[in-house]
Amino acid sequence: MLLKLGIPKGSLENATIDLFRRAGFQITTSSRSYFPGIDDPEIECMLIRAQEMARYVEDGILDSGLTGRDWIEENEAAIVPVADLIYAKQSFGKVRWVLAVPEASSFRTVHDLEGKIIATELVATTKRYMAKHGVKAKVEFSWGATEVKPPVLADAIVEVTETGSSLRANKLKIIDTVLESNTQLIANKASWEDPEKRRKLEDIRMLLQGAINALGKVGLMLNVHKDNLKAVLGVLPALKRPTISHLSDDEWLAVNTILDESTVRDIIPRLKQAGGEGIVEYPLNKIVL
Amino acid sequence: MLLKLGIPKGSLENATIDLFRRAGFQITTSSRSYFPGIDDPEIECMLIRAQEMARYVEDGILDSGLTGRDWIEENEAAIVPVADLIYAKQSFGKVRWVLAVPEASSFRTVHDLEGKIIATELVATTKRYMAKHGVKAKVEFSWGATEVKPPVLADAIVEVTETGSSLRANKLKIIDTVLESNTQLIANKASWEDPEKRRKLEDIRMLLQGAINALGKVGLMLNVHKDNLKAVLGVLPALKRPTISHLSDDEWLAVNTILDESTVRDIIPRLKQAGGEGIVEYPLNKIVL
Amino acid sequence: MLLKLGIPKGSLENATIDLFRRAGFQITTSSRSYFPGIDDPEIECMLIRAQEMARYVEDGILDSGLTGRDWIEENEAAIVPVADLIYAKQSFGKVRWVLAVPEASSFRTVHDLEGKIIATELVATTKRYMAKHGVKAKVEFSWGATEVKPPVLADAIVEVTETGSSLRANKLKIIDTVLESNTQLIANKASWEDPEKRRKLEDIRMLLQGAINALGKVGLMLNVHKDNLKAVLGVLPALKRPTISHLSDDEWLAVNTILDESTVRDIIPRLKQAGGEGIVEYPLNKIVL
Amino acid sequence: MLLKLGIPKGSLENATIDLFRRAGFQITTSSRSYFPGIDDPEIECMLIRAQEMARYVEDGILDSGLTGRDWIEENEAAIVPVADLIYAKQSFGKVRWVLAVPEASSFRTVHDLEGKIIATELVATTKRYMAKHGVKAKVEFSWGATEVKPPVLADAIVEVTETGSSLRANKLKIIDTVLESNTQLIANKASWEDPEKRRKLEDIRMLLQGAINALGKVGLMLNVHKDNLKAVLGVLPALKRPTISHLSDDEWLAVNTILDESTVRDIIPRLKQAGGEGIVEYPLNKIVL
Amino acid sequence: MLLKLGIPKGSLENATIDLFRRAGFQITTSSRSYFPGIDDPEIECMLIRAQEMARYVEDGILDSGLTGRDWIEENEAAIVPVADLIYAKQSFGKVRWVLAVPEASSFRTVHDLEGKIIATELVATTKRYMAKHGVKAKVEFSWGATEVKPPVLADAIVEVTETGSSLRANKLKIIDTVLESNTQLIANKASWEDPEKRRKLEDIRMLLQGAINALGKVGLMLNVHKDNLKAVLGVLPALKRPTISHLSDDEWLAVNTILDESTVRDIIPRLKQAGGEGIVEYPLNKIVL
Amino acid sequence: MLLKLGIPKGSLENATIDLFRRAGFQITTSSRSYFPGIDDPEIECMLIRAQEMARYVEDGILDSGLTGRDWIEENEAAIVPVADLIYAKQSFGKVRWVLAVPEASSFRTVHDLEGKIIATELVATTKRYMAKHGVKAKVEFSWGATEVKPPVLADAIVEVTETGSSLRANKLKIIDTVLESNTQLIANKASWEDPEKRRKLEDIRMLLQGAINALGKVGLMLNVHKDNLKAVLGVLPALKRPTISHLSDDEWLAVNTILDESTVRDIIPRLKQAGGEGIVEYPLNKIVL
Repeated sequence: MLLKLGIPKGSLENATIDLFRRAGFQITTSSRSYFPGIDDPEIECMLIRAQEMARYVEDGILDSGLTGRDWIEENEAAIVPVADLIYAKQSFGKVRWVLAVPEASSFRTVHDLEGKIIATELVATTKRYMAKHGVKAKVEFSWGATEVKPPVLADAIVEVTETGSSLRANKLKIIDTVLESNTQLIANKASWEDPEKRRKLEDIRMLLQGAINALGKVGLMLNVHKDNLKAVLGVLPALKRPTISHLSDDEWLAVNTILDESTVRDIIPRLKQAGGEGIVEYPLNKIVL
Repeated sequence: MLLKLGIPKGSLENATIDLFRRAGFQITTSSRSYFPGIDDPEIECMLIRAQEMARYVEDGILDSGLTGRDWIEENEAAIVPVADLIYAKQSFGKVRWVLAVPEASSFRTVHDLEGKIIATELVATTKRYMAKHGVKAKVEFSWGATEVKPPVLADAIVEVTETGSSLRANKLKIIDTVLESNTQLIANKASWEDPEKRRKLEDIRMLLQGAINALGKVGLMLNVHKDNLKAVLGVLPALKRPTISHLSDDEWLAVNTILDESTVRDIIPRLKQAGGEGIVEYPLNKIVL
Repeated sequence: MLLKLGIPKGSLENATIDLFRRAGFQITTSSRSYFPGIDDPEIECMLIRAQEMARYVEDGILDSGLTGRDWIEENEAAIVPVADLIYAKQSFGKVRWVLAVPEASSFRTVHDLEGKIIATELVATTKRYMAKHGVKAKVEFSWGATEVKPPVLADAIVEVTETGSSLRANKLKIIDTVLESNTQLIANKASWEDPEKRRKLEDIRMLLQGAINALGKVGLMLNVHKDNLKAVLGVLPALKRPTISHLSDDEWLAVNTILDESTVRDIIPRLKQAGGEGIVEYPLNKIVL
Repeated sequence: MLLKLGIPKGSLENATIDLFRRAGFQITTSSRSYFPGIDDPEIECMLIRAQEMARYVEDGILDSGLTGRDWIEENEAAIVPVADLIYAKQSFGKVRWVLAVPEASSFRTVHDLEGKIIATELVATTKRYMAKHGVKAKVEFSWGATEVKPPVLADAIVEVTETGSSLRANKLKIIDTVLESNTQLIANKASWEDPEKRRKLEDIRMLLQGAINALGKVGLMLNVHKDNLKAVLGVLPALKRPTISHLSDDEWLAVNTILDESTVRDIIPRLKQAGGEGIVEYPLNKIVL
Repeated sequence: MLLKLGIPKGSLENATIDLFRRAGFQITTSSRSYFPGIDDPEIECMLIRAQEMARYVEDGILDSGLTGRDWIEENEAAIVPVADLIYAKQSFGKVRWVLAVPEASSFRTVHDLEGKIIATELVATTKRYMAKHGVKAKVEFSWGATEVKPPVLADAIVEVTETGSSLRANKLKIIDTVLESNTQLIANKASWEDPEKRRKLEDIRMLLQGAINALGKVGLMLNVHKDNLKAVLGVLPALKRPTISHLSDDEWLAVNTILDESTVRDIIPRLKQAGGEGIVEYPLNKIVL
Repeated sequence: MLLKLGIPKGSLENATIDLFRRAGFQITTSSRSYFPGIDDPEIECMLIRAQEMARYVEDGILDSGLTGRDWIEENEAAIVPVADLIYAKQSFGKVRWVLAVPEASSFRTVHDLEGKIIATELVATTKRYMAKHGVKAKVEFSWGATEVKPPVLADAIVEVTETGSSLRANKLKIIDTVLESNTQLIANKASWEDPEKRRKLEDIRMLLQGAINALGKVGLMLNVHKDNLKAVLGVLPALKRPTISHLSDDEWLAVNTILDESTVRDIIPRLKQAGGEGIVEYPLNKIVL
């Protein structure tokens, strides 16, 4: 069994390789080749543009790949979504494709764009969106730098944004969301029906999600006198069941748990207050709950 | 409650942001703004020169900030010192402001400098120091590169140094220490009296010190037969109480402890000799003892 | 006691310093000095070319050093091999010196090279190899870029290779292996007989190997119901004895073990299937088994 | 009068700005703006993708712009070609869009591609080319890295090439030329009819060509005795009329001429032989013959 | 005779060294020394902050130096101004120190600042300016980043600006000009009276100005039939007397002149129209008119 | 006819390519090939280490090459020296191989080194030098960093130096010069006898020397009234015959000459004094006198 896996070339490339490394797979690229190596004889990688990935997975040239939901929809590709890969700080954040117009324009809704020029990289999706709203406009393919086009080169744009800051910097305002997107692991339909490939894809999914889970999480261990255990556990998030073990001194217990890194700064002072001692935070690689 | 916090701009800036990151706070700077973002709605950051920090904390424009004790003293600022932040390898080392003269000169003590020119960035402190010793000299403000001025542009200098190597490279010798300094977390007096701000400042202090504690420390775990436990514990530093837990095999115990990274290379061979097995060293993020 | 230790200058320099750092020694180099600092008063470092290291260790100018087995043999140096330091991903891989000829040539074995020109950096070793096979050839010292010399500047070469890719890129084929090599920690014979220096060298060896062991390994901890313990242990490699401790809930146990990073991706899915919960992978610094 | 001029964003951007600088116009770009400044109040610049330039010039949003003949044809844009800007060493070389297939394939001519997949960035041009040859094939838009697609992702490609080296590196062979291209200065039809804008465009053309003429050319001056003048002139290219002036010594003349830099190395030795003295080569900025 | 010359360290350093290179002096700096070398045995260089230059020239520690008029005035230094060095594109532009206030404030003139805080690096000059206008305000020394201080850390600032863009980016508006400045070559009074040093300073002035003159100028030569000479001369700027020489063909003349680079693009088309042929523009190093 | 030309790889590589460019030859290297391209069909280039160049030119594998006289002598190569290429500022300076010993040692002359260890890259030359002085010493091949070896790893060294600063920095003193060297263009003996190759080599020599001549020289032109001509000519160096031509105004003459760049700063002020007007300095590419 050999799983042909598409790695998105370009802005997601390094983030994807890094995510696989955290998940336990070493992918080695070379500036001269579009076939990165991987230290798993059951996988063969190929670098493919995110825009074209879904097309090649649908056609079966690839068994699976990583790409955005936006480009899957743009290609109207019939594929199997295997997993959503979402973690904002590692380039895997959620993004929106929005309809934006000049701040200084009188456009308020999509209905004001009748007969206007709309520039976008996502031509098919935008045309479907306009049709859905019953608005006739000229949707032009934009080769890039779309957000600088209004008002000189276009009346409105449909463009991807995470925080909106690039749009604001170009004095554009958002008047609607056309599509929400995030990175997905997708599979070819036939490959997903193949038991061996499916097992492999499920393993990859578990490991990728384990690596994503560990991002932004840390381990915390501390000692507590048994009289204070309840108070200490009261501080920890209810949903996480900490590991509690006995120390050789029967009066004391060791508590070990996993926390969101962002909550640690609130929890440590309260643990200390509740009687926690020797509080130690340590880094994690992977979490499979 | 909103705590206005001054981050020292310049040589300490990245080290400070890194320390806060280890403590659990994400500070995000932008080359265009002097108001870095922070992922804590109770804090508002502002980049301020270390030289001016104490002045603005004293005036209450800031509730607190990080700066050196040297600049607090130079400004004779009435502030509350909340914590000394000292860890040499991360730009938070102790430094000295010294009185230095050309190696080739005949100056031996401060008393030889009567009527001479002294160049320094720390004019007020140097003037107080000269007055204390009853020596009259011309103390000139130096805009930088102070250590290259003697003997052509000045007779002596008062300059900051960590290791003295820059002074030696400029053929200067130290004849006295004018001031010792390190980075401090400081607070405005009124802010420190405000219960909410004080609680926040105490939490920040605990987390910053937890992060500093973890620098240069590592975790060590090992298994040991109960007959060897005493020997193994004899090798470990007396002051640290290791966590000892029972394994399912009743003959064996697991020992887990925190050590100075610099001592590990001496301790591991002796632990091995004392019967330690499966000795594993692992990294830490934060320690609150 | 002061141990004079040679650090190989050049391609291995950073990898060696990094390995010592992982082992617990901070080596600080300066672009201006060939005597790096080290934070151990019992050791004095000197940067020496790998090619010359064995000569100076043999002569006793150094007590010990790191160099390749190739250059030890080339110098026919009488030294004590203390440890093989092998870990491919950190520049400490195994390498081969091979006899290579143009793909387009008719040369098939060393015996076809009678009277030909062989370029190499390893002149003495190559001459011994040729003599052993009873072939007379002109062995010329090559100042570098040896692999581009055939067929214009040489008929064959003896050159070092890890993967063979540089040879293939120059259209050369390997017809024999002349020597296999890897990095070694070596000692002067008299130094090895000195009890104090030997104890120090043995400690260094233990710590370097502890650091190498930890490369490519990770810690894994998980909780398991006692009914599933056997199934979970069945998944873990037989040779590694995991640490098993009781949780406060008597029905549950905590399992902690060390695994090859490359096996984790296969083991985690099976642990999950066997009833493992809260599976967490964490990084390690050093392992002394 | 204000001439709106499109500067091609991307690979030609710096070369274009440099060419204008040589022609006497300072264009200043900023990473934050798509409207570069220019030190001529009669011109307003805008950065536009080469692929979209012709479309915007045709529509009159721009009066003129620089782009390739390939993208003019791809857009079937009705514009006025004002000047061909050709100078290979400054990114203004001639290029070809070629039909290429895997070296290992059996495809020999375009007629072998019936029913095959052809990947290209130049979809419309490629479709016209296929139609002209009466071949039906699936022409797919390629988002980049087209040359690595055969044979896995496409059967053939239509791709731009200067030297063919990238194609060879990807083991592709050229079986036909689809289109030859070079950079052009183009104008909107109405703008070209406007006398003021036309005069301005003609001035720009003269200066751009003056700058291109000077690239690869140098000035050469030398002294010659009147008896040797004929011999010296015989060495110089017939078509260039050198400037000959009298020196104060009536027996001697000064000759000053412009030569192709690439011919100087052949001409200087022959001038010397013919009696030239004090031969001096000097650099030029601009040539308007 | 040895002329001690101060080179401004910091932002003007490279521009100054480049200007001297164009003037014919090679200054070589080393990162380790504050005494740059110069290939003229009559000059000895020293790197000095622009802020301190005038003070050391006044005191006679230096014979001369380059610094801004702003810092001469700030130090109220009694020196001889030898030459204004002004050329905007090479960091030698004219600058203004302006009084700026928040755009959103109600301050309109200096008189609205009674009792307010003004931050500046130019404390003495600002105090004199305030006194001159009869306004009492607190003038505070600013260690840098002055323009971000209003309104939080100061009410107004006195800051240097070339184009005003940094002020606008910080939402400040200019309400008065406090001081205009440019770079000057200055001399110590006694040194200027010394005939040898004065001769040397005058030579340096001539060469520096010759180099500045050549910046932004180019040479232009062309051939013209004697019947068209008058028309061609009519196109050239009246003030520049071109060199006109006879060619061997008596009907033709060669014209050689120096022009502002920025006018060439207007003049060349008109020269061509007037009958100029073989128009060639060439670069210049130095011009002493 | 095809001339095989060796380009020295390494420290001289870029300087050599730059010199050929100034001489009129474009050499294009690629990181993947040892056969640089050149825009002259009569020449074929090969990159060769300077140390090995003479050996391959002697053997006729190359017709000619650039290398140092040191390595020619070290190889005792029988080649034809075609031209000395000397220009200090472009890496073509004169260098010396010197015998150096620790400043703190008692060694004064080569005769003090009897029985000592001498480290050098130039083993054969050093052995001949020692033999010539009748001194027996152990000459060891040094793989680099020779100047840091004394006194620990060697007693003395023979090392190349331009200014001696690296030796001084290592606290070594020079006690003799073993060999002086500079870059040479050399030829194979048979190639030099071949009329076509010789003609080609002589052309290359003329152009390389023309390019070297122009380094450090500039053109100077000025106008002068005929009454002042003699005074102006008196200022110019006697050996250079300037070109003097009549202007249309019979009273005035144009003077054009070539000067050493380093003398211009002295000459311009005196030309001005002698009545020179419109003095213009311009850059040169090549000079063949």
